[in-house]
Amino acid sequence: MLFKTQAAFKPTPASIPTEHCNYRLQLPSGLPVHIHPLNPLAFVLRAAQIYPDKLAIVHPDVEHPSTYTYSVWAQRIQNLAYALIWSGIKPGDRVAVIAPNTPMMADAHHGIIAARAIITPINTRLTKPEVEYILEHSGAKLILVDHEYTHLVRGEKAQIIICKDTGRFGDPYEEFLSKGRQHSNEKGWSGLIMETDEDIGATLCYTSGTTGRPKGVLSTLRGTYLAAMANAYETRMEHDSVYLWILPMFHACGWTFPWSITLAFATQITQRTVDNQLIWKHLLHSGVTHYCGAPTVQIGIVSHPHARKLSHRITTTVAGSAPTAHLIGELDKKNINVVHVYGLTETYGPFTRGYVQQFYKNLSLEERAKYMARQGHAFVTAQEVRVVYQDDNEELTDVPADGKTIGEIVTRGNIVMKKYYRDPEATKKAFRGGYFHSGDLAVMHTDGSIAIQDRSKDIIISGGENASSLAIEQELSEHHDVLEVAVVARPHPKWGERPMAFVTLKPSAERKWAGRHAAFTEDLQKFSKNRLPGFARPEWVRVEDELPKTSTGKIMKTALRGIVAKL
Amino acid sequence: MLFKTQAAFKPTPASIPTEHCNYRLQLPSGLPVHIHPLNPLAFVLRAAQIYPDKLAIVHPDVEHPSTYTYSVWAQRIQNLAYALIWSGIKPGDRVAVIAPNTPMMADAHHGIIAARAIITPINTRLTKPEVEYILEHSGAKLILVDHEYTHLVRGEKAQIIICKDTGRFGDPYEEFLSKGRQHSNEKGWSGLIMETDEDIGATLCYTSGTTGRPKGVLSTLRGTYLAAMANAYETRMEHDSVYLWILPMFHACGWTFPWSITLAFATQITQRTVDNQLIWKHLLHSGVTHYCGAPTVQIGIVSHPHARKLSHRITTTVAGSAPTAHLIGELDKKNINVVHVYGLTETYGPFTRGYVQQFYKNLSLEERAKYMARQGHAFVTAQEVRVVYQDDNEELTDVPADGKTIGEIVTRGNIVMKKYYRDPEATKKAFRGGYFHSGDLAVMHTDGSIAIQDRSKDIIISGGENASSLAIEQELSEHHDVLEVAVVARPHPKWGERPMAFVTLKPSAERKWAGRHAAFTEDLQKFSKNRLPGFARPEWVRVEDELPKTSTGKIMKTALRGIVAKL
Repeated sequence: MLFKTQAAFKPTPASIPTEHCNYRLQLPSGLPVHIHPLNPLAFVLRAAQIYPDKLAIVHPDVEHPSTYTYSVWAQRIQNLAYALIWSGIKPGDRVAVIAPNTPMMADAHHGIIAARAIITPINTRLTKPEVEYILEHSGAKLILVDHEYTHLVRGEKAQIIICKDTGRFGDPYEEFLSKGRQHSNEKGWSGLIMETDEDIGATLCYTSGTTGRPKGVLSTLRGTYLAAMANAYETRMEHDSVYLWILPMFHACGWTFPWSITLAFATQITQRTVDNQLIWKHLLHSGVTHYCGAPTVQIGIVSHPHARKLSHRITTTVAGSAPTAHLIGELDKKNINVVHVYGLTETYGPFTRGYVQQFYKNLSLEERAKYMARQGHAFVTAQEVRVVYQDDNEELTDVPADGKTIGEIVTRGNIVMKKYYRDPEATKKAFRGGYFHSGDLAVMHTDGSIAIQDRSKDIIISGGENASSLAIEQELSEHHDVLEVAVVARPHPKWGERPMAFVTLKPSAERKWAGRHAAFTEDLQKFSKNRLPGFARPEWVRVEDELPKTSTGKIMKTALRGIVAKL
Repeated sequence: MLFKTQAAFKPTPASIPTEHCNYRLQLPSGLPVHIHPLNPLAFVLRAAQIYPDKLAIVHPDVEHPSTYTYSVWAQRIQNLAYALIWSGIKPGDRVAVIAPNTPMMADAHHGIIAARAIITPINTRLTKPEVEYILEHSGAKLILVDHEYTHLVRGEKAQIIICKDTGRFGDPYEEFLSKGRQHSNEKGWSGLIMETDEDIGATLCYTSGTTGRPKGVLSTLRGTYLAAMANAYETRMEHDSVYLWILPMFHACGWTFPWSITLAFATQITQRTVDNQLIWKHLLHSGVTHYCGAPTVQIGIVSHPHARKLSHRITTTVAGSAPTAHLIGELDKKNINVVHVYGLTETYGPFTRGYVQQFYKNLSLEERAKYMARQGHAFVTAQEVRVVYQDDNEELTDVPADGKTIGEIVTRGNIVMKKYYRDPEATKKAFRGGYFHSGDLAVMHTDGSIAIQDRSKDIIISGGENASSLAIEQELSEHHDVLEVAVVARPHPKWGERPMAFVTLKPSAERKWAGRHAAFTEDLQKFSKNRLPGFARPEWVRVEDELPKTSTGKIMKTALRGIVAKL
């Protein structure tokens, strides 16, 4: 209307191409003007539009290093989406990815969603039968696989695209992208149809499955968008941030950080392996501002010979288990600030955070660490976290906020998975009473913060008392010579169960106790006397060179229980 | 299940009351575990739970100053919700508020939503007939009114609650809150039912209505949540932030900052009036980190005798019109960082932002300001902004991204209003072609950023050319002696229209031109010769002591046109 009478506003034919700033997907008709389905793909498209020349990905520590700006990367993501569609991938299909942290892995988190398919990342440390099970269960139609892991997919019926991680001509993955470009007919983003249902599946991540078969956790576009936003906000990621990939992206889709990074317009550095020497190179010289890692990974970082105080402040997100006072202190000395979060694959990674209080300033490091070790309160977009017990009618009742009574952590809201894929029974069980049941046992403190006591299966029932293996570990980790400690139950003829501690020593203490492990055991037991009640003191202590860990750096208690079973 | 066999986990009766950390609304049954309707009320409840003793509101510059911690404030909000429900307010009812920036006004933004009603803030500068019209049109059932504005609601049928802004016993508003508490039967938050539809109305703000009747802009819970989140993120508001209220909350619900502040756990300082001396008191001594204001308000702030360089960095969000180089420079000298955003009431306030680019560092202030004056790109949760022209079939076509071709700014997505309340005709017109039409004329630059040229009605058609009054103002504002300038069209016998400039002089230049306005006119015309094409140079210049402004600090061009009409 406005322009009908004002001819002068009609544009002259475009002399400058506008394509480069058109990052709009094809909008299906019928969508209300005021509703846009939440979709984390939006973030990378914004980044490419607003900061086209900013470094999006740096992949430095390989034979053929590569770097991509946001505009180039967005084009590659678009190519991947077209290539998938051209390969027969339909909306809702699963596309598996088996790779360490490479540019291809980063592409996959956006390109698969752009093709309206579901990304199914698979842990590279799994055995072939485990991978087969996941491929079978997910029904993945296509597999993107890093050249180092092709043995895991040998003989699979699904279409396989191998990535040699070269970023160069001749790499099958690059050829796949080229085909996508070719089949796009240069329609660009406007040739891809926008998903109108934000409640549709976005990612399908399989739990590690310490007991029984791994379960497929189906998340939605809406949940991924809101979780990514929370992670960017809670860790203060911004356009001048540089994120270093240490956490594997295959672990719960990197806790949604692949999308938090793009939301923030930040630069990400991908690394194939967790190599502390390379990590320190980047912390010191690549302007890193953010990374994520479990405490065991963090211990490796702060204990490395190259570790030193950084000239700039770094924020690290710690999850997996609570950081100890020692670790928080060591990180702090390096100028690394800890954001302690808690979550599971079923909650898109983080869903609670230990919020720092004003009075922490006046506390000793040890006291402060005790507060910081708590799992805290629900994250900004995580609606609700409760600690409950369940009565005989399956009604959930909150435990008193007394810091003592143990219950189970349950949650609901937008950053809880939609369901276990193809497993209505497990879904029903996990969602009983209208809440997702985490399986983690915790107390609620008077300030409403929650603190994990244990996984339900990790509780040690010693003389009829419930001993939290986590609480025991926290106390023992304060012993001057202890680097890491894990405690599991060991059958005891009199008490039913008693704690057994597996310990690694600090490098500085190794010589002191060499050949004198019995003396160390005695020392540690003496140390625990003033700190732990009788039923919670370690009856047995075993010094190890290394503790068995998952690919994400969590100590594998199942392996330790295996050792115990053979004793 | 977990607890059936493990009796030790059953809690002993609570010795410590848990009520203080229960901020859960009553959850209606039938909601999927993984869906929680987005609702900005969640933010203040989180703040009260996580930081109960943190200062939420400080109201210092009145006879009876008051301060509220988050836990106390949350209780007051709950009381308000119960009081409204007890007064007969049903879900979806409108509750009007007429007040300056007071604690009651802050309460209203949360308490009305907690009662599942719609907040209808009314501009205190309106005339009684205008207020009557809005009350009639909105059908408000109850009015919360500040004692200074009771004359605006005299004779209204709706229930009226007067607030004397004392925060003390005897104040009718405080009595109203007490009644709410009383009628809550101490059920707390769990006695209030959660809204399950995030697409339901949250706020109803009336546009200033320079032409015709004001229109009621209905926003949703979902949109308010996402807009508030974007504002907190884009301005880096955090738990140690202090927000100073200068922008009236009745203006588009304070651009959703009432909820951004609570999301960030920040402290807000409320002020009844815009008093530059008080503002400087707070900037210098109250730890303020954030405020919002239109350029005219900002000019008043930087020009005040108390203005000086702050020892800490402040972020100010500027909207309403583009900040000039002079203003950006002056703010920068005071250590105030500018976030330039653009939006309308129909877009919850901000929906685009001028994103700072790396190369700005190498530019002169004047050059930098030219980039920063652009309206930029869509905000983090604002999906899409386009500059289009409309052909005869009402199809929208993007203008070329050439920085020259003028079109209209249109947008769609989650932070666009749901509709004009009770006005399907106006809604249909505003939403034609599936996009909200802003009425603002802009170009798109090659980098995809948009830059407003004018409101459609502010374009000056001079000798058949389209002269942007905004572009003329920007050039003239660079004259050394100009403080503020506004340009409107004035009929011209030969050229159809020609620009007329209304100018205020800097205090330092007043004496220089005293009694010599003709000489100043000549000087300004000479100045514009190298900067503007002939058709865009001001044919007439008028020096004023003050320019007429709206309550939000926007220059009222309608008033200037009124002057022109009488010439």
